[in-house]
Amino acid sequence: MFQAETVEPVHPQDRRGRISRMLSPRSIALVGASNQAARIGGTLFANLKRAFHGRLYPVHPSEAEIMGVRAYASLSEIEDPVDLAVIAVPGRMVPEVVEEAIAIGVSGAVVVTAGFAEIGGEGVALQDRIVEISRRGSLPLIGPNCIGFMNVHEGVVANFSIDPHSPLPPAGGVALVSQSGGFGSYIATMATKAGLGLGWFVSTGNEADLSVAAMLRHLVEQPEVKVLLAAIETLRHPDVFIETAQRALELDKPIILLKAGRSEDAARAAVSHTGAIAGSAEVLDAVCAQFGVHVATTMQDMLDLGLMFQTGKRTTGRRLAILTSSGGAGVLLADEAARAGLSIPVLPEEEQVALLSEMVQPFYGSVTNPVDTTAQAMSVSDTIERLLNRLEKSPTVDMVTAVVWEQAKPHLDALVSLDHRSPKPVSILSTGIVPAVSDAGTPLYVDPARAVRTLGALARQSLDRPMLCLAEPVDEARVKRARAILALASGRGVLMEHEGKRLFAEYGLPITQERLVSTPAEAAGAASTLGGKAVLKAMSPALPHKSDAGGVCVDIAPEQAEHQARAMLANVARAAPIAPIEGILVQEMVPARIELTAGIKRDQVFGPIVVVGLGGVMVEILAEIIMLRPPFDLAAARNAVEGLCGGRMVRGDRGLDTAEVEIVATIMKGLASMALELPEIEEVDANPIRIFNGRAVIADALVTIDREWLHSSP
Amino acid sequence: MFQAETVEPVHPQDRRGRISRMLSPRSIALVGASNQAARIGGTLFANLKRAFHGRLYPVHPSEAEIMGVRAYASLSEIEDPVDLAVIAVPGRMVPEVVEEAIAIGVSGAVVVTAGFAEIGGEGVALQDRIVEISRRGSLPLIGPNCIGFMNVHEGVVANFSIDPHSPLPPAGGVALVSQSGGFGSYIATMATKAGLGLGWFVSTGNEADLSVAAMLRHLVEQPEVKVLLAAIETLRHPDVFIETAQRALELDKPIILLKAGRSEDAARAAVSHTGAIAGSAEVLDAVCAQFGVHVATTMQDMLDLGLMFQTGKRTTGRRLAILTSSGGAGVLLADEAARAGLSIPVLPEEEQVALLSEMVQPFYGSVTNPVDTTAQAMSVSDTIERLLNRLEKSPTVDMVTAVVWEQAKPHLDALVSLDHRSPKPVSILSTGIVPAVSDAGTPLYVDPARAVRTLGALARQSLDRPMLCLAEPVDEARVKRARAILALASGRGVLMEHEGKRLFAEYGLPITQERLVSTPAEAAGAASTLGGKAVLKAMSPALPHKSDAGGVCVDIAPEQAEHQARAMLANVARAAPIAPIEGILVQEMVPARIELTAGIKRDQVFGPIVVVGLGGVMVEILAEIIMLRPPFDLAAARNAVEGLCGGRMVRGDRGLDTAEVEIVATIMKGLASMALELPEIEEVDANPIRIFNGRAVIADALVTIDREWLHSSP
Repeated sequence: MFQAETVEPVHPQDRRGRISRMLSPRSIALVGASNQAARIGGTLFANLKRAFHGRLYPVHPSEAEIMGVRAYASLSEIEDPVDLAVIAVPGRMVPEVVEEAIAIGVSGAVVVTAGFAEIGGEGVALQDRIVEISRRGSLPLIGPNCIGFMNVHEGVVANFSIDPHSPLPPAGGVALVSQSGGFGSYIATMATKAGLGLGWFVSTGNEADLSVAAMLRHLVEQPEVKVLLAAIETLRHPDVFIETAQRALELDKPIILLKAGRSEDAARAAVSHTGAIAGSAEVLDAVCAQFGVHVATTMQDMLDLGLMFQTGKRTTGRRLAILTSSGGAGVLLADEAARAGLSIPVLPEEEQVALLSEMVQPFYGSVTNPVDTTAQAMSVSDTIERLLNRLEKSPTVDMVTAVVWEQAKPHLDALVSLDHRSPKPVSILSTGIVPAVSDAGTPLYVDPARAVRTLGALARQSLDRPMLCLAEPVDEARVKRARAILALASGRGVLMEHEGKRLFAEYGLPITQERLVSTPAEAAGAASTLGGKAVLKAMSPALPHKSDAGGVCVDIAPEQAEHQARAMLANVARAAPIAPIEGILVQEMVPARIELTAGIKRDQVFGPIVVVGLGGVMVEILAEIIMLRPPFDLAAARNAVEGLCGGRMVRGDRGLDTAEVEIVATIMKGLASMALELPEIEEVDANPIRIFNGRAVIADALVTIDREWLHSSP
Repeated sequence: MFQAETVEPVHPQDRRGRISRMLSPRSIALVGASNQAARIGGTLFANLKRAFHGRLYPVHPSEAEIMGVRAYASLSEIEDPVDLAVIAVPGRMVPEVVEEAIAIGVSGAVVVTAGFAEIGGEGVALQDRIVEISRRGSLPLIGPNCIGFMNVHEGVVANFSIDPHSPLPPAGGVALVSQSGGFGSYIATMATKAGLGLGWFVSTGNEADLSVAAMLRHLVEQPEVKVLLAAIETLRHPDVFIETAQRALELDKPIILLKAGRSEDAARAAVSHTGAIAGSAEVLDAVCAQFGVHVATTMQDMLDLGLMFQTGKRTTGRRLAILTSSGGAGVLLADEAARAGLSIPVLPEEEQVALLSEMVQPFYGSVTNPVDTTAQAMSVSDTIERLLNRLEKSPTVDMVTAVVWEQAKPHLDALVSLDHRSPKPVSILSTGIVPAVSDAGTPLYVDPARAVRTLGALARQSLDRPMLCLAEPVDEARVKRARAILALASGRGVLMEHEGKRLFAEYGLPITQERLVSTPAEAAGAASTLGGKAVLKAMSPALPHKSDAGGVCVDIAPEQAEHQARAMLANVARAAPIAPIEGILVQEMVPARIELTAGIKRDQVFGPIVVVGLGGVMVEILAEIIMLRPPFDLAAARNAVEGLCGGRMVRGDRGLDTAEVEIVATIMKGLASMALELPEIEEVDANPIRIFNGRAVIADALVTIDREWLHSSP
């Protein structure tokens, strides 16, 4: 058989080159080509033939020609180099074909065949085999269980779900990557109808090798790609995704992500669809927000944003002008503007006077903004053109949205012309999609919400650009000290509160003044040195949730401390007789106006995530948290804290003051360093953070360590 | 001139009869008719002529005929009775024409002329005049500043924004009422395109007399009307609206409301549009939820729901079957189902086996639900029909949604046929609107979210039917006692806490044990009788927010009470030297696991509203409240409390237990009685309600009385 082992392992840079050659090939072989147009191998070959100018090699065991092109009995019969092998043979034959592709030095392969990991059992084994073979042979592979890809710019239609007789979409700046082939085709169809110039469409299927993230990583570097759409169920290769998001920020190319499989029922459906396990959708959303990726709420939302972003425009501000012949539509558009974070500034007196001079008299509309021409004024066809000229020159507004009936051709022309000559973004609300407008590339929507929400997204892309942040160098001395503390948990996996607090202190987190003592009598002594009321806590490695066993007493005067400590130990002895008591933690009692919580959670996909939220006893009821993936800088942390409760945490009466925000942000930064330096940490809870009069102090600590790490460490 | 004063005032029943005659007229006069087709009076007459079979009387000062119909010089020249007068003359002439209409006994008038209240100043005066005239003459009036109305069922197109040459929509069961004429026309156009059978479209404009609510009240009684769509900026006649909502519940006719003017900018735009002041959109949403009115989030959402509701179907459960050729689309649909409150049950073994037997082998899809046929199986055209038959008979699912390409005619036919023969609701997700499906009335959408959200709304209409609740009889003795307490506030408008608590007690609200004393020495005595720690509060009519002036001390042991009371009074004397002290309120200190707030707020539109929410110091930051308009029953109150924090208030760890929910619901009921019996109450704050161990106690009270009422009362 083939000697795949003789192929040398490739350098990452070389892998990138291979991916590039497979997606922009000079030559393509189709293994499983067919003369029957209705079969997958027939549709695929018809599609490959129609626009590709490179060499095509249909592979068929017996036919001499496929659709008029000389056929080959196997890949190895092809004498010239093959950049791309498309594999459409039955599942059991796929491993052998992949081996053969490697043997003849193919750059990359697409396996469209289904019946792999998505069906479980033997399908999983079959997929494992091709993963093993392609990895050994360093062969980049798309699929299996995908529908292939399309690169309109270079005439490559290696896709079996496109009708070979349908017209190819124009080669525009939008690239779509979809895990699901069928839904990807659905999106591609709808995108083309909506007027998106879909220059690329890649379906990744089971992602045995190349994932949506890997495809985005490739596409973001292509100069013809201006906007990236991604439809995923499970995000694989999170590091590649984040690297791509950062690169997209540098290049100012928007990525719009649609995530399916958020609910429990949907996640179940996703498993039976592509055999994938979903991470938390909330964490994915948070990571996207952090790295400037737009999350679409629906498929339509994704297309709406794509339509706006493919204009390539950016905005310098959030002030929107609304031009409408219907006052009611203007009111609804203004509502949507508020939702999208845009303002509708009242135009200054002189601009109002100028607009008024363009109106048909008597004028019963409004020139304040929304500019309501009323239906009557709109009947004079050059009125709108003159109004648009004034709004284009207005220093008061940064973008324009206009309501136009689809029959009103001169008005639509005026808007397209404005869009083409002005740097200000334009959107149109109309009663129907008008092909002339779509062809001209001016975004047109049939619902007020959509016409304005997209301008809001454009403002985010233009103005809210996240700062890229590199991880700080690891502080080796601190890591050594921290590991000495973590070692205390060996055999149990959880640090006791006083141990956790020592770890917190290493990372600069503000903790309560406290002392661990051995006897009730010592507790009284420790309490009296604190100056004020004290909290007593029973420390036991067996009681991570000590208050459930009566192991916490609050509000204790020093003179009562000995008595109370004794009573507390008796409680614990009753509730948890076998729990060994390591001591009594005597802690200052800190006042709190607000209680927050912070910590580290571990996501299946993205790893450690730093969270901050409303804390105290109602933490689960309020369920108000904000997440950041480390590394991040202090500005991002501050921003996260200020975003709590829709911004009311800092704006609201009795909310956090500037000093308090700063301390909480510093706690988040400290947790980020902890998460990055100590990967063995499973979870951290700093709850509550008690906040009062410019001070924020962590009053309890729960640190859990990954048991596998504990067992594998020396 | 005309002797309008001689017309007798009409009985309400008679007014209903008049409205009915004007909207279903046997004869129509158009004052301001024109032979020029482009003018409003020309468009209007052309529209009136084209489908109306009753008598038409164009009124024009000089022309003998309008578009071939004999014209009259004035209304009074018409010898026969006129049911409807449409008035399209310049604004200054409108009052006279309205007077004339009354004089000849017209049933009702539509004034389309603009330039009234919406332009302010003299326009307001002009509108006031026609209001005065029509009220005096008991003439129902639509407008001014509207575009008229359309009643397709009876061929009445009294609307100037419809092109007389466009086809009339089929007379279907959907009625649209819109305050804005232009936006209403926009919605009407989009509704017809979406396949809604728009049998009625009324625009109400400035609503000098008849409002959206009044029109809905009329339309809900029409047997041909099955679904009501309403687009409003300001809701006028809230009582009529609620009465209509209740009647719609009785008749099981869904009302779908789109409210514009939610944001500040939008409210400003609304004022300049129809001269209306907006109430709180949040209160409107709450009232709609309470009375089963569907609130649309966008225009598209309103049309989507209309399309589903016009099928007339209802559902007996929330279990959805998803049939898809794309696994990815299935996953996204499942997500949307979770958002819409629907479940995607796993089909039982025997149903799965049966479905599997219909699939083309080898089968790589799924039969668990979503039923994923994969693209291959869908190519066999009767597979889908057999699968649909099985889902139709399945006892496991209540509704079906299916993904079909728009070209797949046999599949679409199978779905339409299923929809027609099955009581189970059906929705289709396709790549485009298919006229054959729209004509057949099966709801078809182009976005997954929309295909499923509408089924969620159908489930709400079918299963979550609010109970109608009548106000309880007024307890006159209690009102007398309550008014004696309110009288204490005369001259200041605010009750002191201890007075407010007496009022609370009258309405069965649980309050803290407390005693008002005069001196610090008495405070000590009162504190010792409470048994435990006490709270001391300085009572002064000048200090409704007593804690800001140092007038509250908590956690006071009886032996410290005298000393602390003295210190507190000294604090208050410093902070507010002129505040007269009426006494010291000595209160039990109640523990709290959770603090809620409850109260009465007054909405500009709906009047008194009972609210309940998260309380304590963070009330403004959390901003989590639920509202009910009295009267309501205990079940509705319970439901509201259980809905706090997305349901986590009762489901979450440390949330409310059943007994605690009951007490809070009782507090809401008590507040409702208070609001209904004592209209002079402006606002009530019971914050905090301290909740602990099955007990809920109101620890503070702030009651504000309407100053105008105070001044006008004896």
